[in-house]
Amino acid sequence: MAKIAGLSPLAPERFPDLPVIEGVSFSAVSAGVKYTGRTDVMLALCAPGTAIAGTFTRSATRSAPVLDCQAKLGGASEAGAAILVNSGNANAFTGKNGQVATDAIVQATAAAVDVPAARVFTASTGVIGEPLPFDRITAKLNELKDLLSPDAAEDAARAIMTTDTYPKGSTASCHIDGKTVNIAGFAKGSGMIAPDMATMLVYIFTDAKIGQPALQALTSAQCDVTFNCITVDSDTSTSDSLLVAATGSSGVDVTSSAEFEAALHDVMLDLAHQVVRDGEGASKFVEIAVTGAVDDASARIHGLSIANSPLVKTAIAGEDPNWGRVVMAVGKSGAPADRDTLSIWFGDVLVAENGWVSPGYKEAEAAEHMKSDHISIRVDCGMGSGSSTVWTCDLTHGYIAINADYRS
Amino acid sequence: MAKIAGLSPLAPERFPDLPVIEGVSFSAVSAGVKYTGRTDVMLALCAPGTAIAGTFTRSATRSAPVLDCQAKLGGASEAGAAILVNSGNANAFTGKNGQVATDAIVQATAAAVDVPAARVFTASTGVIGEPLPFDRITAKLNELKDLLSPDAAEDAARAIMTTDTYPKGSTASCHIDGKTVNIAGFAKGSGMIAPDMATMLVYIFTDAKIGQPALQALTSAQCDVTFNCITVDSDTSTSDSLLVAATGSSGVDVTSSAEFEAALHDVMLDLAHQVVRDGEGASKFVEIAVTGAVDDASARIHGLSIANSPLVKTAIAGEDPNWGRVVMAVGKSGAPADRDTLSIWFGDVLVAENGWVSPGYKEAEAAEHMKSDHISIRVDCGMGSGSSTVWTCDLTHGYIAINADYRS
Repeated sequence: MAKIAGLSPLAPERFPDLPVIEGVSFSAVSAGVKYTGRTDVMLALCAPGTAIAGTFTRSATRSAPVLDCQAKLGGASEAGAAILVNSGNANAFTGKNGQVATDAIVQATAAAVDVPAARVFTASTGVIGEPLPFDRITAKLNELKDLLSPDAAEDAARAIMTTDTYPKGSTASCHIDGKTVNIAGFAKGSGMIAPDMATMLVYIFTDAKIGQPALQALTSAQCDVTFNCITVDSDTSTSDSLLVAATGSSGVDVTSSAEFEAALHDVMLDLAHQVVRDGEGASKFVEIAVTGAVDDASARIHGLSIANSPLVKTAIAGEDPNWGRVVMAVGKSGAPADRDTLSIWFGDVLVAENGWVSPGYKEAEAAEHMKSDHISIRVDCGMGSGSSTVWTCDLTHGYIAINADYRS
Repeated sequence: MAKIAGLSPLAPERFPDLPVIEGVSFSAVSAGVKYTGRTDVMLALCAPGTAIAGTFTRSATRSAPVLDCQAKLGGASEAGAAILVNSGNANAFTGKNGQVATDAIVQATAAAVDVPAARVFTASTGVIGEPLPFDRITAKLNELKDLLSPDAAEDAARAIMTTDTYPKGSTASCHIDGKTVNIAGFAKGSGMIAPDMATMLVYIFTDAKIGQPALQALTSAQCDVTFNCITVDSDTSTSDSLLVAATGSSGVDVTSSAEFEAALHDVMLDLAHQVVRDGEGASKFVEIAVTGAVDDASARIHGLSIANSPLVKTAIAGEDPNWGRVVMAVGKSGAPADRDTLSIWFGDVLVAENGWVSPGYKEAEAAEHMKSDHISIRVDCGMGSGSSTVWTCDLTHGYIAINADYRS
């Protein structure tokens, strides 16, 4: 069984107060999928007319529920929709049993809450390679239906945790034509314990009115600059899923609304940062901003190369302003770089420029910044106008302890 | 100053007896570049007629001596050649001083041993971002010349160590037309301590007779299946260099000789394995063989994805037969894979097949294999005939201790 580490030192003070999203209700129960003494299944029911968009792991070995969800996106939205998620078992790499279990849960959920099977989205997170005891979940569907409540989002957020050290929630609103549009979401990730997998699951709900194709375009674009810009250890789950459900109940059409896009961005970025802050063994939150690259894609490649470098991550853990490792990570990334036009800052301290240490650099100043639990690294490539920002955490003894110091 | 860890538990028993390569002599001195109480500069002098081939880091931020060596390959071989290497300072990311220092060493070496500057190959390894005190090196050239001896290869191997826990040497021979061709080489890597960089340097000498273009083709091809198939932590040095020098003194033409190619392969693979065995914090040597991929390149991508996965590496450190993490690493690699045709072995134990755990799998058997200090993981993709083998080490508290538990 998982050995849960203590609360991350980077955890937020508390779970936020999430607003009710009209047309959405939540419930959570203890089904005993694997854990005891806690909830492990959540249900979210969305009113007819809800548009649902999503993004998923690109893993070639993704799980049955991921494949099932992907196939259902883009369907009609006249019917209601349900999201059913269990923790404790990822239903991943379970052979033919994977689809069998997914189908059973989808059919039972559709019958229980009276939505078409094509509008039931499921996810599973937890141990992989073990058949999902789906009957324990389907046996609880009536209880889940009876418990549905518009203000139970935090209960749902807690039910999908595995080795997360805290539940992750976020909310934002925008005001359009004198009306308020609310967004509320929650996420789980990135704790993991063998043979559990680091699955990231994200569910976001809004009362905005928007067609599915427009919502999908917005979701994909915002995912690229939020969840696709975070990394804990470069390892990619077989189950990552993100869904955004728009009920339309506010009556406010947000198609092409910059205000709504900004609010959705805020919620997604906040949740993405909370996942990083719960990274295994994390003691520092790290922002890496790359500018001056030949294009945005190259900037992102450099940023992720720095963020995933074990040598950079251990230097940060050691509070060492080791700019040589940043140079190394830029050099190895594969994206265009010129050694002699690189500039590197730790916090506000310019440490390197023109292919060498900055003449005014005082290591004590950079070392002071490294003591913070929010580290900022900026790299300017001096080549063009491409930019990207990515977020990660440091690599500590805690990571090794969580992932190596036990036998499953 | 570097904190040197104790001898790697995976170290070979002793440095091998290297044969004299006729036409090559070595020397090593203490120049005080950075270290005290040890040698830190080596010279290798090769007779006229020696062909020199090489491969180098692909880093976009590579050092001045690397750029200098790359420009010199392919030159005429009528003249003798010299290789001059210092430890203690990598002469990397030193701005314009980098080329100035390299030029000064090249010119002084050329004058001291009477070879053209175009035939002097240098390398530097150690701290980066600090100007190389090249005058300390050039001041020792007469001493280096006086000490030259055909049987001082081990002295040279020791002089280029930085945080290596042991010197790395290897030899092989082959017999062609009743004559013996000898190969002897040495390497340094992969210890590192901030702000030192993990530089891998490899120098191989043979009395074989072969033209430079043929030697270069052979060197590049063998590097692809030896040094390019090892990884400690996915981080790439700015200074990696490998040179192969063929003096021709045996009189045996090895152009197109399969025997010579096999012997060169053996030396390169042995040295590559010794670098992995000296990986920071390594407690287990890991061989990852991928078969059944759509092509060899895809097999190598899968292999390196497994080898570089922090979750796989920590599982190995924890002696955990965590095949789920291998599935994850294959899935994220980006190369073609089919979840349901994957088979995975730990040692001789088939753990997974047909997209699920193998029916006959007993975890105790796989767990027994994981206790060894030589771990073998095999993955068959079940898609084609592509194959590749890569080597790595585990990720332990030792790695974190070496790279994070200090301030430079």
